[in-house]
Amino acid sequence: MTQLSLSSLGERALIQRIAAKIAAQLTSQPPWVLIGPGDDAAVIEPERGTHDVLTTDAVVEGVHFDRAFVPWDAVGYRALAVNLSDLAAMGARPRAALVSLVLPDTIGADDVDRLLDGLLALAAEHRVAVVGGNVTRSPGPLVVDVTAIGSVRPRRILTRAGARPGDEIWVTGTLGGAAVGLQILRGGGREGAEIERYLRPIPRIRAGLLLGRNRAASSTMDLSDGLGDAVRQIAEASAVGMTIDAASLPLSDGVREWHASRGGDPLASAMAADDYELLFTVRPSQRGRLRGVTRQLGQLAMTKIGVVTKGRDVLLAEAAGTRDLPQGFDHFQ
Amino acid sequence: MTQLSLSSLGERALIQRIAAKIAAQLTSQPPWVLIGPGDDAAVIEPERGTHDVLTTDAVVEGVHFDRAFVPWDAVGYRALAVNLSDLAAMGARPRAALVSLVLPDTIGADDVDRLLDGLLALAAEHRVAVVGGNVTRSPGPLVVDVTAIGSVRPRRILTRAGARPGDEIWVTGTLGGAAVGLQILRGGGREGAEIERYLRPIPRIRAGLLLGRNRAASSTMDLSDGLGDAVRQIAEASAVGMTIDAASLPLSDGVREWHASRGGDPLASAMAADDYELLFTVRPSQRGRLRGVTRQLGQLAMTKIGVVTKGRDVLLAEAAGTRDLPQGFDHFQ
Repeated sequence: MTQLSLSSLGERALIQRIAAKIAAQLTSQPPWVLIGPGDDAAVIEPERGTHDVLTTDAVVEGVHFDRAFVPWDAVGYRALAVNLSDLAAMGARPRAALVSLVLPDTIGADDVDRLLDGLLALAAEHRVAVVGGNVTRSPGPLVVDVTAIGSVRPRRILTRAGARPGDEIWVTGTLGGAAVGLQILRGGGREGAEIERYLRPIPRIRAGLLLGRNRAASSTMDLSDGLGDAVRQIAEASAVGMTIDAASLPLSDGVREWHASRGGDPLASAMAADDYELLFTVRPSQRGRLRGVTRQLGQLAMTKIGVVTKGRDVLLAEAAGTRDLPQGFDHFQ
Repeated sequence: MTQLSLSSLGERALIQRIAAKIAAQLTSQPPWVLIGPGDDAAVIEPERGTHDVLTTDAVVEGVHFDRAFVPWDAVGYRALAVNLSDLAAMGARPRAALVSLVLPDTIGADDVDRLLDGLLALAAEHRVAVVGGNVTRSPGPLVVDVTAIGSVRPRRILTRAGARPGDEIWVTGTLGGAAVGLQILRGGGREGAEIERYLRPIPRIRAGLLLGRNRAASSTMDLSDGLGDAVRQIAEASAVGMTIDAASLPLSDGVREWHASRGGDPLASAMAADDYELLFTVRPSQRGRLRGVTRQLGQLAMTKIGVVTKGRDVLLAEAAGTRDLPQGFDHFQ
């Protein structure tokens, strides 16, 4: 089927098409959206008693995804998900998003539609109002840059800076699924739980909200750039060290099975980027609060994976001994 | 002088370098910035009694600027300025910005520094706190995507939708400077008033604030994509027509002189993109309010350039007769 090219459609028509799609999806904008897409800027009413939480993250073709095996709806989904994950790590409730599309002419108008479908489906799930954005052409790769805006009560803000020696280190969900999913996709696979973990990571909004509301976590960060990165960032922001227990890392059965049959180090998958779980620390005295969060969360697993230390080293404890925790993912290396 | 390449610097080091630069510039973050750059997201306290105004706009190398003649500081300046101009068009006061950098390896670390210098200088001028952002590498062109957040009191919001037949059409400042400046740059010129207009457009923040505060404008939009585009957008949003008087368009002396010596149609320059002036409409009964705004603004010229009509046509009245107003700039054509 021949798609309309972007240059034949024209920017104005494309913006109208995108605006119509957003309008159709949001059957009713929430009452706090005073001005939505279509003016010079959006206007929203802050939620009483809360602060604004703001984050931006870009998804770049050829860096963060390969269009050969990532469907367009997943590109849109992930572009919003990575931002919602950042809000979750602050204990914030997502409210609104701005979507900036930088489009090469190698993407067709129908592809843009599917990209928006994926983004809007996740937005609807979390009642995020897409209140504005921007479309520009580009000679280069597709860039989807999303800004997400959330709200949080001042006393419930989660940061990276509150970990203290003796705190326990915890992680939500399971690790390694995204890395294994990416390997399976590269090998030609097209479905399965691990692939879903890579294509459509679930931002841990509810976990973040409950950790903030129950004041159960002393520090929190999401795992976008991998466990090694997140552990280091929290350790640095909190001026502490951390020791991670390799044996305790919660690998899913699928990840274990894939490595059992295909080889490779499951630890490398568990440490890789793109598992959008939350890493957080808990004071031993606050374990009761964490149990409250776990009860309210229901299905989502929470696993203790290490301990915060006074010495500033960031270590991985394995059966064979203790060593520096391997580095996280670095886009520029 | 050899610059550090981005790949040798590494993403973490680059982010630290950028964060240090932002921190150095903002000697003191305003008290309403609870969490600035460096966590999963920023947290800011909304201004009491105001709504949040949100906008995002990307500047793409090869589309919006040519690095052959646009200095890096101007790239950063413009990336923020185009967003502040959108806030101005809503009557909002800018407060904060997020900066997403998508960097090819053909840009050096010193270039990124200069880009940030230009952006931060404009931010300081308008007391905009750069509260967060994102850095990613890219195989493609440089993209600087800025999200700006402002505040506005509900009764002072300016939109595109309030023009009524009989309203006068006004514009701030002068037209055509950016287009002529770009021509001079392309011809090898490197300084002058018109070049400044192109490289460092002045967002009309104060004009927007005063138009909103005095409730002088019935509709407002900025001229980012040219006069033809802005007139059409307001006409469509307000369900009216507009007739622009060609002879009244406020060309600067520099623009007139350049066309007198080099030829070309001054009207084409006046209609081109990148003059970040405000277009607004005023009810005849509100002329007194507009005079109040003009007095408070001091130096900035305000020129009446046309009239809002009941018939939906968007027209240009010239000595030779009346015709459809030429189209604005379209990135995809």
